[in-house]
Amino acid sequence: MKYYEYTKEMLQKELENQMEIYNEYKARNLSYDMTRGKPGADQLDICMEMLDTKYLNNCKSQANLDCRNYGVLDGIPEAKQLFAEILNVTPKQVIVCGNASLNIMHDMISRFLLLGVGNNAKPWCKNEKVKFLCPVPGYDRHFAICELYGIEMINVPMDDNGPDMDLVEKLVANDEAIKGMWIVPKYSNPSGIVYSDNVISRLASMKCAADDFRIFCDDAYTVHFLDNEPAKQANIISECAKAGNPDRAIIFTSTSKITFPGAGISAYASSEANIECFVKWMGIQTIGHDKLNQLRHVNFLKNYDGVIEIMKKQAEILKPKFEAVLNVLDEKLSGLDILQWTIPHGGYFISIDTLEGCAKRVVSLAKECGVALTPAGATFPYKKDPNDKNIRIAPSFPPSSQITMPIEVLCVCIKIASLEKLLNN
Amino acid sequence: MKYYEYTKEMLQKELENQMEIYNEYKARNLSYDMTRGKPGADQLDICMEMLDTKYLNNCKSQANLDCRNYGVLDGIPEAKQLFAEILNVTPKQVIVCGNASLNIMHDMISRFLLLGVGNNAKPWCKNEKVKFLCPVPGYDRHFAICELYGIEMINVPMDDNGPDMDLVEKLVANDEAIKGMWIVPKYSNPSGIVYSDNVISRLASMKCAADDFRIFCDDAYTVHFLDNEPAKQANIISECAKAGNPDRAIIFTSTSKITFPGAGISAYASSEANIECFVKWMGIQTIGHDKLNQLRHVNFLKNYDGVIEIMKKQAEILKPKFEAVLNVLDEKLSGLDILQWTIPHGGYFISIDTLEGCAKRVVSLAKECGVALTPAGATFPYKKDPNDKNIRIAPSFPPSSQITMPIEVLCVCIKIASLEKLLNN
Repeated sequence: MKYYEYTKEMLQKELENQMEIYNEYKARNLSYDMTRGKPGADQLDICMEMLDTKYLNNCKSQANLDCRNYGVLDGIPEAKQLFAEILNVTPKQVIVCGNASLNIMHDMISRFLLLGVGNNAKPWCKNEKVKFLCPVPGYDRHFAICELYGIEMINVPMDDNGPDMDLVEKLVANDEAIKGMWIVPKYSNPSGIVYSDNVISRLASMKCAADDFRIFCDDAYTVHFLDNEPAKQANIISECAKAGNPDRAIIFTSTSKITFPGAGISAYASSEANIECFVKWMGIQTIGHDKLNQLRHVNFLKNYDGVIEIMKKQAEILKPKFEAVLNVLDEKLSGLDILQWTIPHGGYFISIDTLEGCAKRVVSLAKECGVALTPAGATFPYKKDPNDKNIRIAPSFPPSSQITMPIEVLCVCIKIASLEKLLNN
Repeated sequence: MKYYEYTKEMLQKELENQMEIYNEYKARNLSYDMTRGKPGADQLDICMEMLDTKYLNNCKSQANLDCRNYGVLDGIPEAKQLFAEILNVTPKQVIVCGNASLNIMHDMISRFLLLGVGNNAKPWCKNEKVKFLCPVPGYDRHFAICELYGIEMINVPMDDNGPDMDLVEKLVANDEAIKGMWIVPKYSNPSGIVYSDNVISRLASMKCAADDFRIFCDDAYTVHFLDNEPAKQANIISECAKAGNPDRAIIFTSTSKITFPGAGISAYASSEANIECFVKWMGIQTIGHDKLNQLRHVNFLKNYDGVIEIMKKQAEILKPKFEAVLNVLDEKLSGLDILQWTIPHGGYFISIDTLEGCAKRVVSLAKECGVALTPAGATFPYKKDPNDKNIRIAPSFPPSSQITMPIEVLCVCIKIASLEKLLNN
């Protein structure tokens, strides 16, 4: 029976029951952390061999370049090749960088602000206002970049196919101040959904009032499947090219969740014209990124198939953790109609939506009970979830044995918050 | 006898002699490259052992942190400690980053432009004009950053003690648009001079019209001595603190020329207040830099004394190359009064000044003869040496055996250009 079909007395009784269970948990002095979207130690062990000096090949690239010395701004050719395979573009469309794709995205925005998007475009900062479309729920670190630089963020709701494209098309067509949009097109953070090819194609072809509109495509999870293979998806760069907007999209990715989060390599891809301009700018910022680490990665991962082999091992560890969360949610909450959740086929998160106005209360109840969750609102621009519904669950970091219990606690908290809300209605 | 004491006939005769020698060299189809301020392969071999996995200590920091994973924005504590020793500041004043200090300098300028220097200061880009003082000759990559972002550069001449401080003090006192200044205080690029403590102290205490004036102190060569030990020098950060301008200076450095240019670690230091603000900004740009490489470096280099041991080995290789250049200059040109050159006790360059208006001609003559030199003007903002005098010689990269010959060619080119000039006067 669904909670909203309960009588007031039944709700009251159920709340008392759940409070009793909650207090039992509380008495146990639990301590769990479900906040961090980072790999567990067992995942990091998968690529330990990569640190062996044999993968440095005497510090020489395939073209016999000494990777210890200065130079090679856009990455060693074999690393460009590897990312070209991962991102389904040509090596000429790729620049390989240091250990963090977030860094590249941040720097791209700061350059667009100061220099414009290239080709003598007006610097974004010369406009009175710069706005970005932000599909929600989304990645807090994207939003933090916009917030730092005073870029106004506009929420765009998402469904299982990606952002609401009718809304997106209407917004970009009519507002020249909208200069960019964040997307995480595959295994989206946090919902785990995969944008449909139709959404990708509409993003690529839509008419924009601003001719310097750019799509920041964070493809962080492009090969991060939980099942058998990565989801197939239209390539936004080639879709943009087909639609006559070749320079619209930039894809960012990294090996942070393939090899090591703290010591991976990152890359970005775009049209050849964009890449030419970006390399020129980057040449003022650095003489080159860490080529020894690029070498290590390429010699260890070898090629796309090598990456997929690693990702299968990652999935073997991750999938049971996701299943543990989903099983508890299913067992404890299905049929009550108080929670919606996603069933991701990849990525790092499970996104849950409580009844309206309950997310903050849930997180606070859980905290009191020793279960740390990502703060409610974190998945929205300005940390403000207008409906106070969304919570991001990160199952990757805790050991398998420490997932069921905190999710059980979470379910009790969800029940309590929902019952309180229904009683107050 | 000095050239300028020659009669016209003597000059003519000498020019014919030198042209004959020049043409003999030319006939040999030489090919030498004296342009690149990068370490030679033998220098890179000094630290090869660092790549051994034993220096990763199982990927654990001293505080048992897993350096493979995300986190630790400001660098692992032991890396902060190491750079604190190198820069003579406290670890709290240090942030350790990725492989390039140039990258930090660039990013600092782009943030100051977009965000101001901190503490709610007005973003530099909101001013009609932003100007930087540039001691000359200086480092082309500093000037390139300013040029990219439209920062107007003002040349400040240098002598053996550093920049002309009377001029500097006058300029900054009267022009609020002057927001910054580049300095390379020790073994300056390219002159190799060491700023005197008096210059450091005047930089720290001078009155600036702009209260958001900042000194970008590129201490790239802080331990890069050629003799027995690094030159002692007053610390600009503590001098600034003493003078009541605690936030004025930021020091940048790296291990690029200690371990590996392409795969070192970098750091910057400033007042604790600045560092607090910079960490906040950096936290939007990245989740953390490559901590495995930080770990490798610290476990291999250990501490300041360990760094000095490595630098002694570097000097053993570099010093004979510097001497080879200086010996040829001395042997071929001393007494002619057509060239001034520096005798550096550290750093990577020898700076030479021809007679006025001769540098471009010298570089072009050398090129025709198969000797590549850094383009004349490269050591000045906008690549314009107003006196067309300065040329930067980089002796580090070629093997020892390939230094005497190109410098002999250079000397002939200098003689020819000087004779031409004297004949045309």
